[in-house]
Amino acid sequence: MKNIGFIGLGIMGKPMAKNLLKAGYPVIVYDIVEESVHELIEAGAQKGTSSEDVASQSNVIITMLPDSPEVQDAVLGEGGVIQGVKSGSILIDMSSINPKVSQEISKELEQKDVVMFDAPVSGGEPKATDGSLAIMVGGPQQTFEEVKPVLEVMGSSVTYIGEIGSGNICKLANQVIVALNIAGMGEAMVLATKAGVDPENIFNAIRGGLAGSAVLDAKMPMVLDGNFKPGGKIETHTKDLRNVLDTAKELEVPVFLTSQVMEIMQALKVDGKSKNDHGGLVQFFEKLANVEVRRK
Amino acid sequence: MKNIGFIGLGIMGKPMAKNLLKAGYPVIVYDIVEESVHELIEAGAQKGTSSEDVASQSNVIITMLPDSPEVQDAVLGEGGVIQGVKSGSILIDMSSINPKVSQEISKELEQKDVVMFDAPVSGGEPKATDGSLAIMVGGPQQTFEEVKPVLEVMGSSVTYIGEIGSGNICKLANQVIVALNIAGMGEAMVLATKAGVDPENIFNAIRGGLAGSAVLDAKMPMVLDGNFKPGGKIETHTKDLRNVLDTAKELEVPVFLTSQVMEIMQALKVDGKSKNDHGGLVQFFEKLANVEVRRK
Repeated sequence: MKNIGFIGLGIMGKPMAKNLLKAGYPVIVYDIVEESVHELIEAGAQKGTSSEDVASQSNVIITMLPDSPEVQDAVLGEGGVIQGVKSGSILIDMSSINPKVSQEISKELEQKDVVMFDAPVSGGEPKATDGSLAIMVGGPQQTFEEVKPVLEVMGSSVTYIGEIGSGNICKLANQVIVALNIAGMGEAMVLATKAGVDPENIFNAIRGGLAGSAVLDAKMPMVLDGNFKPGGKIETHTKDLRNVLDTAKELEVPVFLTSQVMEIMQALKVDGKSKNDHGGLVQFFEKLANVEVRRK
Repeated sequence: MKNIGFIGLGIMGKPMAKNLLKAGYPVIVYDIVEESVHELIEAGAQKGTSSEDVASQSNVIITMLPDSPEVQDAVLGEGGVIQGVKSGSILIDMSSINPKVSQEISKELEQKDVVMFDAPVSGGEPKATDGSLAIMVGGPQQTFEEVKPVLEVMGSSVTYIGEIGSGNICKLANQVIVALNIAGMGEAMVLATKAGVDPENIFNAIRGGLAGSAVLDAKMPMVLDGNFKPGGKIETHTKDLRNVLDTAKELEVPVFLTSQVMEIMQALKVDGKSKNDHGGLVQFFEKLANVEVRRK
């Protein structure tokens, strides 16, 4: 079995690395937070002293980090993967980052005969824990079958999308749709509530039709209870939309609806609500119209 | 069995009236288009000479008309329902109109001891034909059980929402959500396509997750084929959003995302595309970014 290096033991990385251990893979881990490393060692992992050290002992290196700068630093920086990595190894970056950065890092790694995949995930901590993430994979198709069994330990849906960077393009498309579906739900339900109509009746009447969506089913109960405990945080979604806007500018794609949702997220940050679940986007529309969408 | 009057034999009204005939109800019909009346007479209906005439011979009068002015005219105008209607009758307006207009008409009918429901539908011509519309009902709850069997002939989901006007409020909420779900899909898929990624791969990767929706499942295949044959027309959806904007202004609810989709629909009208299916909203984003989201 391949030795797996795992860099980045945050809310998502920790359960993902644990699932690799449970599946029998030897896993060597690194994170700047000692406590997280310790937790993984107790679960059976080996300790790496740096990203470079992890890379030097692994065939497959997985990174699960907050955003583009952290991945650039862990892979290309001082003490990074590129300084220790063996020729013929594979790097799978499972972070959600700017697709252009994935492509740039991949180009650097090519020089060392290292193949890279960008494989961002969707589903959050619960699905990371039970190994049922949706994983969107970009990279060389001929090597995909080799990494697929490793990814299937962490995800129940592993989809090959295209060349390096397409995993993150797919993730960004996903986040645009989710953001606008939540925003649409917010505008609609605030209007209905201010008209004096019970929003729960509307939810029940429309969820089975063309307005039905995973967002409506997952987020409307939160809105009706006024409970926005995350889940997927507004601040994480904001980070993804920033990558959408940067990518859109680069590719010359006008995205004015997404831009507006970005402004909504900024307004929620000002209100101290950016650590709420992104279903809490609805609170922006509630504030504008001075009404709360709640279970009667 | 109740005598049913049916006023408005358009694309939706015709199959709905036919289903009432099939269920065994005596139906008396009226429309300004003689050809449509003739088609219903061949199917077993009786001919009314005006809305007034239809009302004078019915216990339940159903109106299925394009928008608020047509309903106002057919019910309150010269030769309208109110001039012939019998005390104790029930009017069910199944058109999608401004909820305030429903409330105003209901108030006039009260003077004649006539109860009114607003019961707009969702599902389009195919579901009107096979009697599986979603019907959202506003009106007096104590009379709802009386009209429910009639509505169940035309719809597979008949939901009581609240007082008169709530049926249309629910329909407007539905249309806001559908419009923004389509727009979000458009912005996301145009970005991905311009990035060189196969939009069908993205569709398959994300449809089972939080970005999944009835809109994505119904409209993405149209977009991938570049075939925007209606279905639900952009011009019909535009009419609904105009009622959203009027209602939102009346209730003091800022709806700036819906306002932007309204502008998108206006731009598509300028382009001669307003008779396309509303999945064709995506064409606006395609034009802006100069790229087409198509099956490869």
